[in-house]
Amino acid sequence: MLTSLPHLGTEEAQTGRVVRFSDYQIEMAHGAGGMASRRLVEGLFAPLFGGTLLTPLTDAATLEIGGMRLAMTADGFVVRPLEFPGGSIGELAVNGTVNDLAVSGARPIGLLTTFVIEAGLPGAVLERTTRAVADAARRADVPILGGDTKVVEHGKADGLYITTSGLGVVDARVSLSAASVRPGDVILLSGPIGDHGITVLLARGDVDLDASLRSDTRSVWPMVKRLIAAAADGLRWMRDPTRGGVATSLNELARDASVGVVIFEDRVPMRAPVRGACELLGLDPLHIANEGQFLAVVSSERAESALAALRSVPGGEEAAIIGEIRDSPAKTLLCLAPYGTARLVDMLVGDPLPRIC
Amino acid sequence: MLTSLPHLGTEEAQTGRVVRFSDYQIEMAHGAGGMASRRLVEGLFAPLFGGTLLTPLTDAATLEIGGMRLAMTADGFVVRPLEFPGGSIGELAVNGTVNDLAVSGARPIGLLTTFVIEAGLPGAVLERTTRAVADAARRADVPILGGDTKVVEHGKADGLYITTSGLGVVDARVSLSAASVRPGDVILLSGPIGDHGITVLLARGDVDLDASLRSDTRSVWPMVKRLIAAAADGLRWMRDPTRGGVATSLNELARDASVGVVIFEDRVPMRAPVRGACELLGLDPLHIANEGQFLAVVSSERAESALAALRSVPGGEEAAIIGEIRDSPAKTLLCLAPYGTARLVDMLVGDPLPRIC
Repeated sequence: MLTSLPHLGTEEAQTGRVVRFSDYQIEMAHGAGGMASRRLVEGLFAPLFGGTLLTPLTDAATLEIGGMRLAMTADGFVVRPLEFPGGSIGELAVNGTVNDLAVSGARPIGLLTTFVIEAGLPGAVLERTTRAVADAARRADVPILGGDTKVVEHGKADGLYITTSGLGVVDARVSLSAASVRPGDVILLSGPIGDHGITVLLARGDVDLDASLRSDTRSVWPMVKRLIAAAADGLRWMRDPTRGGVATSLNELARDASVGVVIFEDRVPMRAPVRGACELLGLDPLHIANEGQFLAVVSSERAESALAALRSVPGGEEAAIIGEIRDSPAKTLLCLAPYGTARLVDMLVGDPLPRIC
Repeated sequence: MLTSLPHLGTEEAQTGRVVRFSDYQIEMAHGAGGMASRRLVEGLFAPLFGGTLLTPLTDAATLEIGGMRLAMTADGFVVRPLEFPGGSIGELAVNGTVNDLAVSGARPIGLLTTFVIEAGLPGAVLERTTRAVADAARRADVPILGGDTKVVEHGKADGLYITTSGLGVVDARVSLSAASVRPGDVILLSGPIGDHGITVLLARGDVDLDASLRSDTRSVWPMVKRLIAAAADGLRWMRDPTRGGVATSLNELARDASVGVVIFEDRVPMRAPVRGACELLGLDPLHIANEGQFLAVVSSERAESALAALRSVPGGEEAAIIGEIRDSPAKTLLCLAPYGTARLVDMLVGDPLPRIC
């Protein structure tokens, strides 16, 4: 995910110099997509880069060029292990970037991949990864335009890191922003949550659990495209809930839009092995990373047509309306369970599952 | 530098599957920009990504969008140490990407930076690096549109790696390609070579040499812009000679254009400390990396106006015509020294100075 800078203080942005980041050293949590990441982005990157920022950023930056609106994004991939059921760093590096463009309403038109490789990586692993990138790009119907390769000494990387940048053309019918979200709007989710995070966790072998799960890594553009066609005039906001999961994305929405976000626990699609693993390990599935799902907020008038559109796409059969936007409690995510219990769910703090993507 | 795929075999590109890379494991040389890098790119990346390639690649990929020609590039930076006289990884990450766009004839309009950080990196180092990125972007007059941040465990990176992607608008007057280079054309160089590579080498402290040198890291766009204005109709080819140095860039030109490239050793600008260090260490300055210079081939009619244009830009006073294109010996770089001695200079083989950028 592109770092999100939704609340750029204009003073910092203009003076370009008011840094408020005093953490003594960088910890894993700074890369987890939750509270520490936000502190790093808002305290250090936003003030320093703010003076030159063209647009407030969400998943991709947008630019007007030659009368067209372009979206551009960049994502680093450091997943461990490199290969896991359902995919590898290669698929993630394509789909993660394609999805950041897609949830910005942009059709992906080109990718660049940069490999930082540890000396000693077997040539066969590099070949498999490169094939995975090529195949995922072909499935997502987006060309790999090129890239760069750097090699560092043995022990100075963990096999292979990939950074992918992507360019897309924003659909002219789409106008997305947290600010346009209104009480009464509904929240859609494209499919079951947690498959990617739990799959990678189990693939590490640190936990003695066996479950038939696969990463959900895929391009969500086919679903987004159908959603835009069906409900563009009611489409307010989209996000792919990767690091930090659904809870972090919806907390950011609640803060950025100053609304209350309410979800109904029993409407959130989830596979039994994910539910079971989370219960055993004390994890909240709402914090688990996904790599092939997205959240959308649409007006209540467009809710049913939007849901029908998502469900009509192969792989979208489990899409659901999982919640709604309310006036209050503002800036929070409330999760309502059957029988009337309610709990506040915060964004991810710390990082129970580092290097998930 | 974006990986260069100039000789994409069409069969491989169309079938997308004929991999000819059988190296048992990845070595430092695969990232050095010389022979092994070319083997990796031509044997693995080109066949697999070729099926989706839109354009033959040089320093940046170009795309037609909305009637405009855009250039897009991505570069990984893994320099060691992170800071050195005259700059840091932060300046390189901006200028290296800006320069790849510039030598594609493109005015840079936006950058994205992705940080892969090792846990334990002092917050102060990250702050200095981020300021270096911001300041270099301001000097190069290009906005940082956003980026991504990932953190890996202590021991799984070397402080900090940065990948930068950049978007630019290609000047409509420019048409660059190795294929357009003709015997009789002249070769220009923007200034003295080797400052960056030797500065970083000395900053590592492995060599007991003291020299007052600074990295030449800077944006070359102001010089390129002036060159385009003065000689666009005679401008054939440009390249920034980073990894692998001037010799590797000119060897690639000789092969891609099937011409002989001849340079005159005594016309290649070089500072005394670079010459001295290279003599002591047995390095060829033509193989040393530069981060603020570029090579250009222009028609002989435009040679003098092109040189005058470069020299009129602050920092371009030492620009020189260093050689010429000939019919033969084809596909080689010949370096002529005073008193009539001649030597063939190949592209870099192996990597005497790893992680220079």
